[in-house]
Amino acid sequence: MVAPRSPDRAVGIDIGGTKMLGVVVDAADPTTVLSETRLPTPAGAAALVDGIAELVAALDPGGTGPVGLGIPGLIDAHDVFRFGPNLPGVVDLEVGAVVGSRLGRRVAADNDATCATYAEFRGGAGAGFGDGVLLTLGTGIGGGLVVDGRVRHGANGFAGEPGHMLIDPSGPPCPCGRRGCWERYASGSGLGRLGRDAALAGRSTAVVELAGGDPEAVRGEHVVAAVRAGDEAAALVLDEFAWWVAAGIANLVDLLDPSVVVLGGGVIEAEDVLLPRIEAAVSDQVLAHGHRPPVPILAARFGERAGAIGAAVLALAGAAAQGS
Amino acid sequence: MVAPRSPDRAVGIDIGGTKMLGVVVDAADPTTVLSETRLPTPAGAAALVDGIAELVAALDPGGTGPVGLGIPGLIDAHDVFRFGPNLPGVVDLEVGAVVGSRLGRRVAADNDATCATYAEFRGGAGAGFGDGVLLTLGTGIGGGLVVDGRVRHGANGFAGEPGHMLIDPSGPPCPCGRRGCWERYASGSGLGRLGRDAALAGRSTAVVELAGGDPEAVRGEHVVAAVRAGDEAAALVLDEFAWWVAAGIANLVDLLDPSVVVLGGGVIEAEDVLLPRIEAAVSDQVLAHGHRPPVPILAARFGERAGAIGAAVLALAGAAAQGS
Repeated sequence: MVAPRSPDRAVGIDIGGTKMLGVVVDAADPTTVLSETRLPTPAGAAALVDGIAELVAALDPGGTGPVGLGIPGLIDAHDVFRFGPNLPGVVDLEVGAVVGSRLGRRVAADNDATCATYAEFRGGAGAGFGDGVLLTLGTGIGGGLVVDGRVRHGANGFAGEPGHMLIDPSGPPCPCGRRGCWERYASGSGLGRLGRDAALAGRSTAVVELAGGDPEAVRGEHVVAAVRAGDEAAALVLDEFAWWVAAGIANLVDLLDPSVVVLGGGVIEAEDVLLPRIEAAVSDQVLAHGHRPPVPILAARFGERAGAIGAAVLALAGAAAQGS
Repeated sequence: MVAPRSPDRAVGIDIGGTKMLGVVVDAADPTTVLSETRLPTPAGAAALVDGIAELVAALDPGGTGPVGLGIPGLIDAHDVFRFGPNLPGVVDLEVGAVVGSRLGRRVAADNDATCATYAEFRGGAGAGFGDGVLLTLGTGIGGGLVVDGRVRHGANGFAGEPGHMLIDPSGPPCPCGRRGCWERYASGSGLGRLGRDAALAGRSTAVVELAGGDPEAVRGEHVVAAVRAGDEAAALVLDEFAWWVAAGIANLVDLLDPSVVVLGGGVIEAEDVLLPRIEAAVSDQVLAHGHRPPVPILAARFGERAGAIGAAVLALAGAAAQGS
């Protein structure tokens, strides 16, 4: 197979705990999505590789351009997936090499939130900032760090896991093995948990109605819908959630003093009601907040596609670097 | 006054909440200390400037080389001290310009732990590592970040304040305004507090004896002395302290994946009994610890002089850059 020297398009796939989202992008401007497809994420390493191959075939039949994979977990410098709590049964998988050999295409892999960081700092909310932090508030919390215009991977490739920051030693257990990790509170799942707690305590009848009358069925989107409808009890739940999001952001701002914080993930679809609350709570919690300018906190531009677009950006960068 | 083009020595001063430690170093090798002097830290901005001038005069009478200041708090990119909880009454002081004008010498200023980072990553425990984190465990916790061989200051110059990371929302109040900051637990003061809690609960008679019989008088060094003497109750207190130190280090490792963590500050004089406990607790708490190599955790080489030596390194770097 002779690959073209400059591919005209690339494939990016964001592998989530429950679904995979794939995009085909224009190589000349990888933030332009030409098509997209979704498939459920299969369980186990072999089925996962099959599912990725199936998704690439559906997206880009006969294509030869590079493929990028964004994966929720720790990916080392050799594109080996080491471990991720949201992909049980998949450990130490040489995902780049295995999928590349299967497809006969160049395949690059990186952490999913790191991929979203490539996309957002290239052509999204972080564009023009030389350094900053990206956080994805979804099922868990992912992260990416940019310093001097480059996404940073750390000594082993594992940098950017703020979701497992211990923030409450008496908090609920986390699949990672610690207790009270930030993502137990400040992710989309965390918002659902706060909503259910309020519902079970009888504090939020509007939210329970939106969930079909069952307090146990309350999810984050019910809280957001109730807030938008003007419910005051739901607004208190969202205030509490924003406080937890801000607590972790303030920790990161105290440590890194970033030029910008970009927030992505499903939760940020509630940008209208959520972002002002987060901004206020961060301003209140950052060290010496009266003596420093506020850090800009921006919603991600590419929404749920950021990880897939960024995976394609990664694939193209690798292809350019290796002259394929 | 005609300054020599290449100064043969420089002065570095580490300003603490209670004392100032000044050193004169050899410009050719600023990790070589030629002399040192201490003075109490005066209260208030005017007295502080007087005290610094007095200390420089005592250390280096008639000298013309550059002077560096390490200060506990937020120093911006123009050498202005913005705010620090351990220097009450000093706010928005143009410390570099004011002290420089007073002394007729070039003066540079930076955060105290950032100065310690200059020293340790130039010629101390961090030498040879291209990236890493330095933490000073003293009255509070300071920090410094190295990426690509350079100490990082962040957007406003305020990066490196891990001590005010929220780690327990129901914890004790902190002078910064938050509750349950990491330095309430994992600093030298935090060790003293854990020791007093154990003493007041009747759990540690050996420690109370070392404190002269008064549980309220227990300090961190009494806990350490009792551990070295083989007291099991004190060992449990030190285990608890090491757990808290490790909790914050694991948060930083999950986020940054550094090549090395260097620990300085007064607490690290207990390296023999403390470092193995911290290493074990970090290994236990880092995300996916079974799937990554352990991060090296090293004691700072320059001990309590690291901040002052680093301030001199900073002063010489500024002098070299500006050709003075």
